[in-house]
Amino acid sequence: MSASVFESPWLSGLFGDDAMAAILSPERHLQHMLAFEAAWSRACGRAGLIDATLAETAAQAIEVAKPDLTDLTKGTAQDGLPVPSLVKQLKAIAPEEAVHMGATSQDVVDTTTVLVLREASLLITNRLIELEKFLKELEERFGDEPLMGRTRMQAATVIKVRDRVLPWRLPLAEHRVRLDQIRPRIERVQIGGASGDRKALRNKADEVVADVANQLDLAPTKKAWHTMRDGIVEYASLLSMISGTLGKIGQDIALMAQQGIGVIAISGGGTSSAMPHKNNPIAAELLVTLARFNSVQVSAMHHALIHEQERSGAAWALEWMVLPQMLMATARGLGACCSLSQSITRIGEADTKI
Amino acid sequence: MSASVFESPWLSGLFGDDAMAAILSPERHLQHMLAFEAAWSRACGRAGLIDATLAETAAQAIEVAKPDLTDLTKGTAQDGLPVPSLVKQLKAIAPEEAVHMGATSQDVVDTTTVLVLREASLLITNRLIELEKFLKELEERFGDEPLMGRTRMQAATVIKVRDRVLPWRLPLAEHRVRLDQIRPRIERVQIGGASGDRKALRNKADEVVADVANQLDLAPTKKAWHTMRDGIVEYASLLSMISGTLGKIGQDIALMAQQGIGVIAISGGGTSSAMPHKNNPIAAELLVTLARFNSVQVSAMHHALIHEQERSGAAWALEWMVLPQMLMATARGLGACCSLSQSITRIGEADTKI
Amino acid sequence: MSASVFESPWLSGLFGDDAMAAILSPERHLQHMLAFEAAWSRACGRAGLIDATLAETAAQAIEVAKPDLTDLTKGTAQDGLPVPSLVKQLKAIAPEEAVHMGATSQDVVDTTTVLVLREASLLITNRLIELEKFLKELEERFGDEPLMGRTRMQAATVIKVRDRVLPWRLPLAEHRVRLDQIRPRIERVQIGGASGDRKALRNKADEVVADVANQLDLAPTKKAWHTMRDGIVEYASLLSMISGTLGKIGQDIALMAQQGIGVIAISGGGTSSAMPHKNNPIAAELLVTLARFNSVQVSAMHHALIHEQERSGAAWALEWMVLPQMLMATARGLGACCSLSQSITRIGEADTKI
Amino acid sequence: MSASVFESPWLSGLFGDDAMAAILSPERHLQHMLAFEAAWSRACGRAGLIDATLAETAAQAIEVAKPDLTDLTKGTAQDGLPVPSLVKQLKAIAPEEAVHMGATSQDVVDTTTVLVLREASLLITNRLIELEKFLKELEERFGDEPLMGRTRMQAATVIKVRDRVLPWRLPLAEHRVRLDQIRPRIERVQIGGASGDRKALRNKADEVVADVANQLDLAPTKKAWHTMRDGIVEYASLLSMISGTLGKIGQDIALMAQQGIGVIAISGGGTSSAMPHKNNPIAAELLVTLARFNSVQVSAMHHALIHEQERSGAAWALEWMVLPQMLMATARGLGACCSLSQSITRIGEADTKI
Repeated sequence: MSASVFESPWLSGLFGDDAMAAILSPERHLQHMLAFEAAWSRACGRAGLIDATLAETAAQAIEVAKPDLTDLTKGTAQDGLPVPSLVKQLKAIAPEEAVHMGATSQDVVDTTTVLVLREASLLITNRLIELEKFLKELEERFGDEPLMGRTRMQAATVIKVRDRVLPWRLPLAEHRVRLDQIRPRIERVQIGGASGDRKALRNKADEVVADVANQLDLAPTKKAWHTMRDGIVEYASLLSMISGTLGKIGQDIALMAQQGIGVIAISGGGTSSAMPHKNNPIAAELLVTLARFNSVQVSAMHHALIHEQERSGAAWALEWMVLPQMLMATARGLGACCSLSQSITRIGEADTKI
Repeated sequence: MSASVFESPWLSGLFGDDAMAAILSPERHLQHMLAFEAAWSRACGRAGLIDATLAETAAQAIEVAKPDLTDLTKGTAQDGLPVPSLVKQLKAIAPEEAVHMGATSQDVVDTTTVLVLREASLLITNRLIELEKFLKELEERFGDEPLMGRTRMQAATVIKVRDRVLPWRLPLAEHRVRLDQIRPRIERVQIGGASGDRKALRNKADEVVADVANQLDLAPTKKAWHTMRDGIVEYASLLSMISGTLGKIGQDIALMAQQGIGVIAISGGGTSSAMPHKNNPIAAELLVTLARFNSVQVSAMHHALIHEQERSGAAWALEWMVLPQMLMATARGLGACCSLSQSITRIGEADTKI
Repeated sequence: MSASVFESPWLSGLFGDDAMAAILSPERHLQHMLAFEAAWSRACGRAGLIDATLAETAAQAIEVAKPDLTDLTKGTAQDGLPVPSLVKQLKAIAPEEAVHMGATSQDVVDTTTVLVLREASLLITNRLIELEKFLKELEERFGDEPLMGRTRMQAATVIKVRDRVLPWRLPLAEHRVRLDQIRPRIERVQIGGASGDRKALRNKADEVVADVANQLDLAPTKKAWHTMRDGIVEYASLLSMISGTLGKIGQDIALMAQQGIGVIAISGGGTSSAMPHKNNPIAAELLVTLARFNSVQVSAMHHALIHEQERSGAAWALEWMVLPQMLMATARGLGACCSLSQSITRIGEADTKI
Repeated sequence: MSASVFESPWLSGLFGDDAMAAILSPERHLQHMLAFEAAWSRACGRAGLIDATLAETAAQAIEVAKPDLTDLTKGTAQDGLPVPSLVKQLKAIAPEEAVHMGATSQDVVDTTTVLVLREASLLITNRLIELEKFLKELEERFGDEPLMGRTRMQAATVIKVRDRVLPWRLPLAEHRVRLDQIRPRIERVQIGGASGDRKALRNKADEVVADVANQLDLAPTKKAWHTMRDGIVEYASLLSMISGTLGKIGQDIALMAQQGIGVIAISGGGTSSAMPHKNNPIAAELLVTLARFNSVQVSAMHHALIHEQERSGAAWALEWMVLPQMLMATARGLGACCSLSQSITRIGEADTKI
């Protein structure tokens, strides 16, 4: 036991994913926050809202800042998020009036989330493509083998291995299409200021938004989306759909690997502390676990749509608790399924005479 | 209390929606099942899999069939779904060899679901457009009024009514875009036969699929999607996103209507059995309830992705329990939000001096 | 499809439960509401809050009232619940000042829920006892037979049938203990009046509460529990635990019934519209479906604990949407598991040589 | 962002709880695993299943073992849990035949979980008592003050502060009663061996079980509960009920703290990066977030009841992902609510004239 299986010293061996962990790491997260603040100062300077030289000085100081984490932690305990403490620290090392002027915590946190999601999307897309390739290879190698079709867990009619394996792969391609459709809806800068109306930016709001967006390589927005969480929730729903597809693969493989059924052979399964003869389909079970986990978490994200007024601390913090875990579970699932599909040495045949 | 608030004699007054109830009605559902079976017979006849004259005779008999519902109920208790009983009944009134030949229950049930969802999509699209119009009118009438912005439930800075109301409307337009992207992924005929491999259709599978799809005005599919539930789950996720957006509107309105805040006036709220002076924001609260309800239900739909092998009776039946309720909750939310937005007689001002 | 599987003409054949449906029926529900109002009038009369003769007259008129359901529906649409309309109707047939004096809608609705739950508890207890008996019989008949133990879906070591079947039964006995512990926490009258402080009952509050409780055979309460939903949520959690236990039984049986494993024989399974040879373990799958359904619904009930201030229309209505369905799913699961356990004709042996 | 808010360097400032983190720490967890293995060796020695001297030698070596965590991580990645690797390491430092003889991984992991839960129960009980005391003090200080009762968010009738605050406290006392009833159902040693039948312990099973239970100060069991997860799920349900009660308190306080309502004053709220005048009710919102979080997680625990056959790797691992987080969220909620209740400097009055 440990508070998080993703960070436990040993359970992370099963549940962890190094590439996604790097994307979600506090270090990378902090870099995103600083990148936002630096871009913000520069944009305000270029728009003439603050002195341009001071702005550039501030941006350069922010970019190389090494925030005091202990102070961020204390600040988060006090303020509910790290930004007020971070801004105070930045103001101590940069011209005060050129830091965070007219921005609000949510601008920083939400834009940072978007930067994280963009990196996550690339990782997920690559893994989807990789997994599709592995599954296609399985199909090419074993696709013509006979297999007992099973409906309601009962032997039905003999099908081909292709008929079972193709439905493992096809949804992955659909998921990539979905991700491509969702990305433009989510990769947008969040800028609203105090109550989300960009009032502090006066008539320069569009200019600042466009400039910050451009610096961070995100799309600009006409209106802050601080209270419109549908993009993030749609993204989370897709994460859960991906792990659900993998869960179906895992469940199928666990069922196929049963002695007495035996229509799949996998190398390198798990061992038992009591039964040396066992070859447990650990990765297949893990896919089911991760699918169920995300199927539960997705509910929290949908609740977070009820984001009252101009900022709901309650609904917003719920996203923070859940979304990173969904990213980890999805990435780990994709990684585990890639390995699992490569460890399959046979599919088909054994039970077709039933 | 009653098993279903949507069908309770009095609670349906609050939760029910006549238009969606008609779409979900057993009568309409039965018509869809018969439409599938008739199209199937005709397609098999035209493909030469069965005698074309017998096929046409069967199709015509099927189209006007009046199935015995008691027998369907008994059959469902026995077989887990009504199709075996329905087919038996149809075979009694039509040439037996021309009925359901090479099809399976899931083909009927899933295609029927798709036909229901298509009707639901039209209703939802129309309601979204209508609601957007009403919310735009609110914005036009009250958009320039001052309003105290509230972040973390606390007075922040004064904004305009537009700043709160626009985020009610914008996600609805996004939801329509989403629905347009999803519809082609879901409005597809389901045809697989016994174990989903269309084997009984021999070399005529593509022809039959195309013909049935054409008759039902759905897209054909290269592969049965019986075990790939991502389309249906994506649809359900969108339903929950829509009600979540409405839940935010409802929560905002309930908060705005508090005495002491008083930045909204609504005509015709609910009365109390104990306090005649009250004007309860029933519709606003309902939107929150429906949002939370769908946020929970969507979890079940994601679990249903773990659809093992060639047919999971367990995962499939879970969809039946949940999806229709999500449709009702979404439609009711849209209807209630339309009425609510029209009953607003004022937004803005009262608390801006705080 | 249909809005509710419990009320659909044919799906109710699979999902419905007549005994629980009767308990949840609007007719019975209405009787409970009238019983509360009659008891209330009498108690207020006996306490001297209203004229005792008028009170008795009112009580007698209320007991035989035949409320106009159409008006209740309209009232619910308007007020968010049927009580204001019901009270208006009752005042038309009974001395106005002797009806509902000092009570509020929530007193009626919550106490009615408790009366429903009491009946449900008896049904559930009886079914638990019955199921334990059937499972004990299975153990007595087949307990000594060898069975391949399966861990992580893999053949482990040979156990006895008893080792698998006993863990089906033991939690049911625990559930009865839990229910016995919970019942006194839930079978309590709800009386609060307008804002829950019983102020309208002046110094007679304790007397009225005790009298109403006595008439309805419930426990009195010192404080209205209108905003303390933990009793109801605890009850719902137990419902889901019961169906979860049944889900494990169903999952085990579905796995045991697989051809190739074949360690169970069941008579009278479901037929297929495509494959006449099949004997589908419909009831076993249903148990899994109902378990997953309740595992999802229980989440909504826990959300309903966040019941703000003196009455949350939003959180309260969420209970109405979910709790009755959980009762149905639990009762149906128990019924289905009783039948299923009686249809088992063999357990054990087949795969122990693997 | 970070994979876990409980372990993030700065978000842990908001979400973390040191006392529960210590209980859940890998170090403590490892100690529990070693305590089990040592008790196991001794019990087997005393029962004569292994040589008593070797058993004692093994036990002493195990007690002071310093397992190689890197190897545990690798082992977990391979085997799905750390026990096979741990046992291998222990066998390297102790007489091989006297280590883990006849035990299985699940015995170690589940018993360890129980030892964690026992410590957690003590912490939670103490916090409940502490919070009840603070809430009672609030009642004593402000209980007689007038407060506008609010039903459906609307001003209803004037009540006393006591009427709102007492329902915050009463459920906490009920939760302690529940915990006392649950603890004997969960604080039981898990011993089953390979397939849960204790066969390897031959006729010494009862003796070994009693001895291990005695050493660990847990109750013995007649039957392994490895596949009967109702105790753990009941425990998780209670955790969510506790945080739900706290969520109601938090929601109430956040509503009471609104400007324009202003019936509560809190010292030391959160600051804003954009609005220096703000005093955000961070702790109140956090209570709502944690309640919603646990309301979602509890669903996963209920799904985990569907624990197939003699060990479900899939369902079991889902518990590991969720239960520790629920413990953290509950403990943090209790801690935050204790602080929050002590920071309240006034309740009542302001809006009673509405």
